[in-house]
Amino acid sequence: MNLNPGSIRFCPLCGAPIDQALKFGKMRPYCDQCHYIHFEDPKVAVAVFVEDQGKILLVKRANDPEKGKWALPAGYVDRGEAPATAAIRETEEETGLIVTISHLIDVLFDSGNIVILYGAAVQGGALCARDDAEDACWFTAAELPPLAFRSTQILVERWQQR
Amino acid sequence: MNLNPGSIRFCPLCGAPIDQALKFGKMRPYCDQCHYIHFEDPKVAVAVFVEDQGKILLVKRANDPEKGKWALPAGYVDRGEAPATAAIRETEEETGLIVTISHLIDVLFDSGNIVILYGAAVQGGALCARDDAEDACWFTAAELPPLAFRSTQILVERWQQR
Repeated sequence: MNLNPGSIRFCPLCGAPIDQALKFGKMRPYCDQCHYIHFEDPKVAVAVFVEDQGKILLVKRANDPEKGKWALPAGYVDRGEAPATAAIRETEEETGLIVTISHLIDVLFDSGNIVILYGAAVQGGALCARDDAEDACWFTAAELPPLAFRSTQILVERWQQR
Repeated sequence: MNLNPGSIRFCPLCGAPIDQALKFGKMRPYCDQCHYIHFEDPKVAVAVFVEDQGKILLVKRANDPEKGKWALPAGYVDRGEAPATAAIRETEEETGLIVTISHLIDVLFDSGNIVILYGAAVQGGALCARDDAEDACWFTAAELPPLAFRSTQILVERWQQR
């Protein structure tokens, strides 16, 4: 469950009912009692593009949104976590493969999320779908499954058009 | 004032005292009453590298951290805001200049913040320091002022070494 803008009703620090006030250029949830200002930080996802012998690594989503469709290994970055570290962690969690990040591909804005896309190469591990992936496979451009998310679609399209 | 991990004490939705529970792979603040899970999202900053006739655009910071030092025009991205849009907004807020984003330069991890760095070109406006900038100026590589932040330092170094 995520906290949507405007949905905060109590101060998370002191428990008092929260107000709204003009702070740092816009109306933000503000606590009159303890002066806490609530900033809505972006959701940041990392996605990893791994190509090996003409095939790319995709995972079948076990959960909504886009359950049953295939996407790049991906997940949310926690506060304080370097995005490249999150990319390595998510790839291992979802596919069992250990990767190293080779380069930054792009930053996209997809469904209100910031998506940081990295290229990566497999260093070890064994392919085995886990966590919120129902399956994990290598695909050639000729045999692609239904794709989830605009960010995955854009990267796969660029890859096909090379 | 920011909400630091562990500092949340009351549920922002129902006001009940908050607990901790293992959710999505780690201990997170969790409300037993309404089942709200608190995710700590990253702080994301955008910074803009504008070069024109061999000079780069820097702003003198009016506030801490790094008050009095010079940095790339930069600021935080709000939830739901495209990072390139935030980059254009922050540049105008701090320098009065209207820019267009030309390319993504890099994503750095600086002091716990994700920093998305864009190259940009001036399209209009008039140079005039505003908002949390005390001054805004163009600098050649030979006359650089004291620089704030690792991300600014890295980009200026790369620019000097070209």
